[in-house]
Amino acid sequence: MNIDGIKVVDATLRDGGLVNDFFFDDDFVRALYKANIEAGVDYMEFGYRASKKQFSTDDFGKWKFTSDEDVLKVIGEKDPRMKLSIMVDVGRTDYLEDIAPRSQSPIDLFRVATYIETIPEAIEMINHISSLGYETTCNIMAISKCTDEQIADALYKLANTSVSAVYIVDSYGALYPKQARKLTRLYHKILSPAGKEVGMHAHNNQQCAFANTLEAKDLGAKWLDGTAFGMGRGAGNCHSEALLAYLNGKKYHLDPLLKLVEEWMIPMKDSGIEWGYNTSYMLTGLTNQHPRTAIAATKTKDMNYTEQFKFLSYQ
Amino acid sequence: MNIDGIKVVDATLRDGGLVNDFFFDDDFVRALYKANIEAGVDYMEFGYRASKKQFSTDDFGKWKFTSDEDVLKVIGEKDPRMKLSIMVDVGRTDYLEDIAPRSQSPIDLFRVATYIETIPEAIEMINHISSLGYETTCNIMAISKCTDEQIADALYKLANTSVSAVYIVDSYGALYPKQARKLTRLYHKILSPAGKEVGMHAHNNQQCAFANTLEAKDLGAKWLDGTAFGMGRGAGNCHSEALLAYLNGKKYHLDPLLKLVEEWMIPMKDSGIEWGYNTSYMLTGLTNQHPRTAIAATKTKDMNYTEQFKFLSYQ
Repeated sequence: MNIDGIKVVDATLRDGGLVNDFFFDDDFVRALYKANIEAGVDYMEFGYRASKKQFSTDDFGKWKFTSDEDVLKVIGEKDPRMKLSIMVDVGRTDYLEDIAPRSQSPIDLFRVATYIETIPEAIEMINHISSLGYETTCNIMAISKCTDEQIADALYKLANTSVSAVYIVDSYGALYPKQARKLTRLYHKILSPAGKEVGMHAHNNQQCAFANTLEAKDLGAKWLDGTAFGMGRGAGNCHSEALLAYLNGKKYHLDPLLKLVEEWMIPMKDSGIEWGYNTSYMLTGLTNQHPRTAIAATKTKDMNYTEQFKFLSYQ
Repeated sequence: MNIDGIKVVDATLRDGGLVNDFFFDDDFVRALYKANIEAGVDYMEFGYRASKKQFSTDDFGKWKFTSDEDVLKVIGEKDPRMKLSIMVDVGRTDYLEDIAPRSQSPIDLFRVATYIETIPEAIEMINHISSLGYETTCNIMAISKCTDEQIADALYKLANTSVSAVYIVDSYGALYPKQARKLTRLYHKILSPAGKEVGMHAHNNQQCAFANTLEAKDLGAKWLDGTAFGMGRGAGNCHSEALLAYLNGKKYHLDPLLKLVEEWMIPMKDSGIEWGYNTSYMLTGLTNQHPRTAIAATKTKDMNYTEQFKFLSYQ
């Protein structure tokens, strides 16, 4: 299998943090870090660097506000085999004050998450963060809500920045494989001439997260996100272990992730932290909507799916 | 969306029967029948017609041996909006004695399930059953284990029979979308000139059942199998409700299936009948093997996935 230039990005702490408010046990973070390194994962994302002016540290665990010190305290010395990433959301981070020059930080990559409407702000962030020496990607969320024209416009703008890659982020789990292919082609057409790569961050609302990730890969997407056991908002993400199973060979290794699933992810799920496919998520994916109503339905064990569908159909 | 000539086949009683030994409540069967009709499902499969000489009626419920009378007793008068199907396995049915002429039966379609090695026997069955007036399909199981040459040879033979369609049966849930596409193209190339159609029966070991079904559909497969809430052996099947959600419109309707999931399928799962994706099934799918070891591991809650992977890798 051709894995040239592939970067597997583990987003467990970041997307998974959305279901446990970023309260992860330090031992788990260390186990995940170790498993990712042994598995050959290229980047591990240590949550968000959100603004402490906007969000309370009483409400959220440290991986919502991840400082360089938090990372180093948990991992000890940085292992050179894997790069480290943090996500910053447009409008929710004090990036001008809270990011040190790269030479003083264990972080390699900042991923700038944005909706299509705030691409100009995202580009300002990208410019600033790259000027500090970091790699950057731009992660365009809710991509299934954007028109091709909006996307093309955003990509042309991003092609002129220092980003390494732009991501297709299927926040609503609305994409089918053929749409994942269409978007990958569109991204490539605009980004490749500028030397930028394409990334895929999939959600599993319609059980297409893994399939969509493979489809993007086959069409040349190089940045592939996964989370351990699919842990992530709502229906969750592409399972890292499925992705590593597919890529398993010389560079990538499945075993460390299998062990992590057994020892940490299943106990975590059994303890009551909820994520993963159900019919409510299928319906928000189908109707191309934010999973919030499905998250609420899942929490209250509301299984009146016909009512949910009716409600979503009139949104 | 183009749904010309699509046939949605509900295989819940048949593939689902593999996880509860075909002991379905009559009330459930009636609810499923009603839901399928209202949803616009084209065929409902009423289990197998297995040989009572080979299998004991003490060990299995009636839908393993489905007689015409069993069907009529449960559904009452046959609704003309939906056709009825039964599956017969090569070597496991007394088809010469146990099938009445179509004019005396509520059944429209017999699906002949076979491994690639027993295609000649399957063709004998197909010939006999069509001579009784029934529609037939040939369902080639464990297709992921067959070479392209074996498949082409089988398809050329089947092209000269009276079958309406030949199925890609991904018994091991081993196919990725691109393989589903490749097989659909190969099937088409050989079958279309003979006026035969292509079917897809997918398993969810690697969470690709729905995606693979869509891929086959987009390349012209007309016979699409689903089961309510994915009920079926091991990791289960393409969820009918996901398929109907995708096709939802003038002909197909999602609501009746949503209601069935809520009122019957979730309680059935909660009662302890097990099916659906887990990491053990991912590993048998990945290694292209029969799910039996994963079924055993699931039953005993064995989550030593690294050991399972090691065992499967040396098979």
